Amino acid sequence: MDIRNILIVSPMYRELKLLIEKEVTDKSFRFISEGELTQDNLSWADALVSFNLKADYDYSTVKWVHSLGAGVDRFLFKKDWNEEVLLTRTICSFGQRIAEYCLSYFLKDLQFHDTFWEQKQQKKWEQRTPKLIGEQKVLVYGTGEIGQMIAKVFSGLGVDVFGVSLSGKQSAYFKEVMKLEDHFSQISEKNYIINTLPLTEQTEKLFDSSIFNKLSDVGFINVGRGASVDEGALLQALNENSVRFAVLDVFEHEPLPGNNPLWSHPRVQITPHISAVTTPNEGAACFLETLKNIDENKLLKNRVDTKKGY
Amino acid sequence: MDIRNILIVSPMYRELKLLIEKEVTDKSFRFISEGELTQDNLSWADALVSFNLKADYDYSTVKWVHSLGAGVDRFLFKKDWNEEVLLTRTICSFGQRIAEYCLSYFLKDLQFHDTFWEQKQQKKWEQRTPKLIGEQKVLVYGTGEIGQMIAKVFSGLGVDVFGVSLSGKQSAYFKEVMKLEDHFSQISEKNYIINTLPLTEQTEKLFDSSIFNKLSDVGFINVGRGASVDEGALLQALNENSVRFAVLDVFEHEPLPGNNPLWSHPRVQITPHISAVTTPNEGAACFLETLKNIDENKLLKNRVDTKKGY
Repeated sequence: MDIRNILIVSPMYRELKLLIEKEVTDKSFRFISEGELTQDNLSWADALVSFNLKADYDYSTVKWVHSLGAGVDRFLFKKDWNEEVLLTRTICSFGQRIAEYCLSYFLKDLQFHDTFWEQKQQKKWEQRTPKLIGEQKVLVYGTGEIGQMIAKVFSGLGVDVFGVSLSGKQSAYFKEVMKLEDHFSQISEKNYIINTLPLTEQTEKLFDSSIFNKLSDVGFINVGRGASVDEGALLQALNENSVRFAVLDVFEHEPLPGNNPLWSHPRVQITPHISAVTTPNEGAACFLETLKNIDENKLLKNRVDTKKGY
Repeated sequence: MDIRNILIVSPMYRELKLLIEKEVTDKSFRFISEGELTQDNLSWADALVSFNLKADYDYSTVKWVHSLGAGVDRFLFKKDWNEEVLLTRTICSFGQRIAEYCLSYFLKDLQFHDTFWEQKQQKKWEQRTPKLIGEQKVLVYGTGEIGQMIAKVFSGLGVDVFGVSLSGKQSAYFKEVMKLEDHFSQISEKNYIINTLPLTEQTEKLFDSSIFNKLSDVGFINVGRGASVDEGALLQALNENSVRFAVLDVFEHEPLPGNNPLWSHPRVQITPHISAVTTPNEGAACFLETLKNIDENKLLKNRVDTKKGY
């Protein structure tokens, strides 16, 4: 594929410009903010590097789109994709970052941080024995790049990690991987559930009352996509204690609107989509590697299967 | 050593009775609470199993004392010990438990739990990128059983772990172990400091202004002994931000008195000495193994060097 003109549209376009221009001298670049996007810029470009696509533009001259994020639902979910256009996505330390995020909230719960903080406010000395990592069973939805890294980190600490995927294919670090359609029999034995799944038609509103009703006293962490969760069902599960607490980094609408009841639920922690950020350094490095592989006609590990949607 | 009569004095004496009596049939046992201790019981016993010694009793007939805790300062610190009496201590999952405790507060800080919780109260969506484990430098005081387990768990996650010990002897999982007397040159580069040292004359008030003054913006975790910290110096260090926050599980006086200013410092977390509990199962198992090793004249891994004090 012959790529000459590359348009980079990002809130961090200045940092990317510094990192990319010095490395590549045989291409033309334009680095702009999202507000500066015009049809002229797009029509000039062979390649577009961005977090998303804006409606009302004609992308027909673009041959390659590179997503600055790991998730590509903003490009594919409920959209038509021209199969002739190559779509790649950023793969960097997302897995490590998300694993650390999940581990932090897992340990917060096992170690009763909130209980001891409340006791401190009351100057109350009352012992309670923290729960051990090694006695927990964690179920991770999604066994791709990110789910695997969670399984690696958690199992390395002695946790039994189970997986759920479309294929049910066994994978390293998981004690067992189950198929999505027949994992229900084992779900009620788990202590923590972590969602890492991409948003596709199969995962939209996957976490609804049919799953939540099978749980009891579970910690639920969502680092996949907000639209995979039926928020009403989650709130009901929280109130009925089938879900003891939820830690949510992603939402159907972001930023989470002020009137959303999740904000005020006492057993919900909300973080502003920070569990896996693309830093300028890592974003530039992944883009540069992908560009080099395209120029050299090499296999692209980060090519998206646009029909599967991830 | 001929052990016949064993006195077990503990708040969990009932649980220990159930676990121990069924395993040992050729000894006499008495299981009592701490309030039931009498000189008659003591004079009957060849061996005493307890968390501590009470003053005003004559222990001269006891040949072996087994500490139900890992720390033995309650037996040795500023006390005279009869060198003819064998002292052993409990070694069980303390290291693992303490490592999980430390890891939980380390990640709480890296992941900005408090910041995001406060933002949630204000329904504020403001991104901040969590800090990565792999970019942190942790200094652990004490490279024994517990310090080593912390180093193993933290280094397994990619943290650079440095150690400080009396000998400065290198040890697995530590990037470098420094001698206590000459570790000062490197201390200011560290992000987190964890104390696991036993209380001895050398470690009493070790953490005073001469250490705190060399730090900047450090997280301080104490899972060793409270009396190793000069509380006034710690409070000053917190107010001057050389210590950004402190997590304290041990105190010079426990339970921590209600009028202690640590209770109300906003950047101090207090836990009621729960980072390494002895459960009845583990306490009984370690005692039974030690008893067997004594009866069979085997090497005792958990024998205390009563002159060193640990």
